[in-house]
Amino acid sequence: MRLSQFFLPLLKENPSEAQIVSHRLMLRAGMIRQQAAGIYSWLPLGLRVLENIENIVADELNKAGCNRVLMPTLQPAELWKESGRYDSMGQEMLRFPDRAERELIYSPTNEEMIVDIFRSYVKSYKQLPINLYQIQWKFRDEVRPRFGIMRGREFLMKDAYSFHIDVEDARREYAKMYDAYHRIFARMELMTVAVNADSGAIGGSLSHEFQVIADTGESALYYDAAFDEVRSGKVQMSGEEMRGLYAAADELHIPDKCPVPKDRLREARGIEVGHVFFLGSKYSKAMGVTVAAADGAAVTPEMGCYGIGVSRLVGAIIEASHDENGVIWPESVAPFRVGIINLRVGDARCDALCEQLYDTLGGYMDTLYDDTDARAGEKFARMDLIGLPWQVVVGPKGAEKGAVEVKYRKSGEKVEMNTESVLPHLLRGIDPLAQDSATGAG
Amino acid sequence: MRLSQFFLPLLKENPSEAQIVSHRLMLRAGMIRQQAAGIYSWLPLGLRVLENIENIVADELNKAGCNRVLMPTLQPAELWKESGRYDSMGQEMLRFPDRAERELIYSPTNEEMIVDIFRSYVKSYKQLPINLYQIQWKFRDEVRPRFGIMRGREFLMKDAYSFHIDVEDARREYAKMYDAYHRIFARMELMTVAVNADSGAIGGSLSHEFQVIADTGESALYYDAAFDEVRSGKVQMSGEEMRGLYAAADELHIPDKCPVPKDRLREARGIEVGHVFFLGSKYSKAMGVTVAAADGAAVTPEMGCYGIGVSRLVGAIIEASHDENGVIWPESVAPFRVGIINLRVGDARCDALCEQLYDTLGGYMDTLYDDTDARAGEKFARMDLIGLPWQVVVGPKGAEKGAVEVKYRKSGEKVEMNTESVLPHLLRGIDPLAQDSATGAG
Repeated sequence: MRLSQFFLPLLKENPSEAQIVSHRLMLRAGMIRQQAAGIYSWLPLGLRVLENIENIVADELNKAGCNRVLMPTLQPAELWKESGRYDSMGQEMLRFPDRAERELIYSPTNEEMIVDIFRSYVKSYKQLPINLYQIQWKFRDEVRPRFGIMRGREFLMKDAYSFHIDVEDARREYAKMYDAYHRIFARMELMTVAVNADSGAIGGSLSHEFQVIADTGESALYYDAAFDEVRSGKVQMSGEEMRGLYAAADELHIPDKCPVPKDRLREARGIEVGHVFFLGSKYSKAMGVTVAAADGAAVTPEMGCYGIGVSRLVGAIIEASHDENGVIWPESVAPFRVGIINLRVGDARCDALCEQLYDTLGGYMDTLYDDTDARAGEKFARMDLIGLPWQVVVGPKGAEKGAVEVKYRKSGEKVEMNTESVLPHLLRGIDPLAQDSATGAG
Repeated sequence: MRLSQFFLPLLKENPSEAQIVSHRLMLRAGMIRQQAAGIYSWLPLGLRVLENIENIVADELNKAGCNRVLMPTLQPAELWKESGRYDSMGQEMLRFPDRAERELIYSPTNEEMIVDIFRSYVKSYKQLPINLYQIQWKFRDEVRPRFGIMRGREFLMKDAYSFHIDVEDARREYAKMYDAYHRIFARMELMTVAVNADSGAIGGSLSHEFQVIADTGESALYYDAAFDEVRSGKVQMSGEEMRGLYAAADELHIPDKCPVPKDRLREARGIEVGHVFFLGSKYSKAMGVTVAAADGAAVTPEMGCYGIGVSRLVGAIIEASHDENGVIWPESVAPFRVGIINLRVGDARCDALCEQLYDTLGGYMDTLYDDTDARAGEKFARMDLIGLPWQVVVGPKGAEKGAVEVKYRKSGEKVEMNTESVLPHLLRGIDPLAQDSATGAG
């Protein structure tokens, strides 16, 4: 993509309404625009990141055997009366009549509708287990929306729901989803800790919140240092071992009862980006669903639900990965992998070299080419702000001898190299197996 | 994907509420489920088609230089009061207060919001032209929703909006979008005709409706036989020549004034799937938008808008491409390219051959493997119903000698071949340049 053709409206000033760094950077980098309290448009740069995150989530869930569906945003209120949540949901759920005076709600979550879909097709234990998920916009009418898309009202969420013949099978699926979540967040280069959401129930817990560790996180938490060691690759652990690790939110952490020795206990701040939860038969029972078991008996299926805040993750990644100059995108979610900066547009050598690089790199990875006539300083600042993993700087001096400067955004390191070396250098960087050495070199 | 793991709830009976073939087949093939009048869930098979269509639309628009954004479904009512459409939109537009008693609307279209985005960032002619598009769910509260997703209330639409310094540049973009639309529909193997939407204005028209030709189409139309000839490849024509071709809706067609000789005039039925439209300065003026021209003067930008009914296309493609046994998907939008039918699950030879094929083909294309223990007749009927372009049938007799039967759904032709020949045979079929010969062979 040529920057001259790309709609990237940057803000020069720090927006006064933005209290946290991700909100500030998303506005400044032209990723989002507020349309009403807690309601945002996604501009091209932001949407590219959102889609990359969505694709990673979908890919791992597909590999884990989930089936993707898409439920409508608007639903009949009747379903919610069946489950009993029509009354309990309160004002967070938007309700309104359509022109025929039938009441609709804007989906804040989808246990009711998924049970409705399930019961109309699934009649026998032979069709179980099943795990259906969607990635769809939801609305929760928060009293005080804030922090940009981190606590918006209209937000993109992945919600999955599984159905099982018994609790044991639901536990098996729970473990599978728990493991898939660690893979999903690892692919985004996030350090996450799975916090037991029910107090004290270590190991056997069937409710975990996944928290991204970031200094600016909303809540304090305590966790076993093993999480760090697994994340950094120093220690290998099975999913079962990981699920047994201690992690607790501040308010549930009781130092005297903590099973982790003091020198192994880490304190950090976290941002919730996902949860896995065993629902039991709460919704299937309330909505009168049964399936025929092997012996013909009518059995109420057990359920699990599994959420990931897809739009929220955009903010959480920025909170976890930025510096004073802007965002630092992990390669897997970056809007472009590399940005080419032409320091002298109009200079025949610079232009030719840039076009050649744009062509070559563009065949292998998403490439942004700054072909505008802005000043060098503005180009550098802009490229740092939008946080592409790699920058290739082409100036008149280097162009004379066919050399360019390659900058690795994360470390700030710059290396001069021949044009022909750029693609292999970046491909090494993109190959996760070679990541460490490439980082060192770049 | 193994069918035993795929959520594909087929209906045995013809659903009585479905009046048209696409609605009937989408329900029977487990593609959608109705949740309320005109509101549908997309089940896995349907969602895969929807996503394929979405990707083709996005790909062609990106190539044409459009910038993708995503606007929220809910918007503040104030924007609509600014443009004057708050009153004129009528009951089709859902309106309701949020918990703070601020009025929201569910977006039926987005001229207002796109102008709002534009005016907050674009101040100079240097930033023009610009074309912003999104693919997002919309809601129109139709009095009588019907025909499944063909006339639903919640529907997926691509809407693009362009801004220009003058009418001439808007015309240039209009032509570009017109050409892009023909490419989009051609990739879906649809025969479309662009009908002049303003009566009689041939050639210079700045409003075209794109109609898919299908016997079951909702409206009658007349058009120049050249459309057919271009579509079939018999004749090459420039975009400009095509835009000059005669095509008119029934009610605007006046035989005495028709410029096309009788023997060159075709009569057909069509389904509207897109429109391109020159808006002029209607919205930019109403919402007080100007940009600075080269001479510093404040100029009201000219606009164009360009819509495609993405969810509607799923139905339109089925209307145009089906037989008495089910859907016949064009390869580009098919939920899977090929379905492997194992006629004797449990037979070691059949199982081994199927696994090998599933592995090989799966590396090149989306592959569905019917590994269920249903009867042969049921498997054949199911595969025809869901309409995958290719079927590979593995039975015990053929398996003995390593042979399988390959069926081309469109023609019904069956060819017996060695297992090793299947992949090359299918790849030839997928290559559009070899399409005709492969069709002949298959």
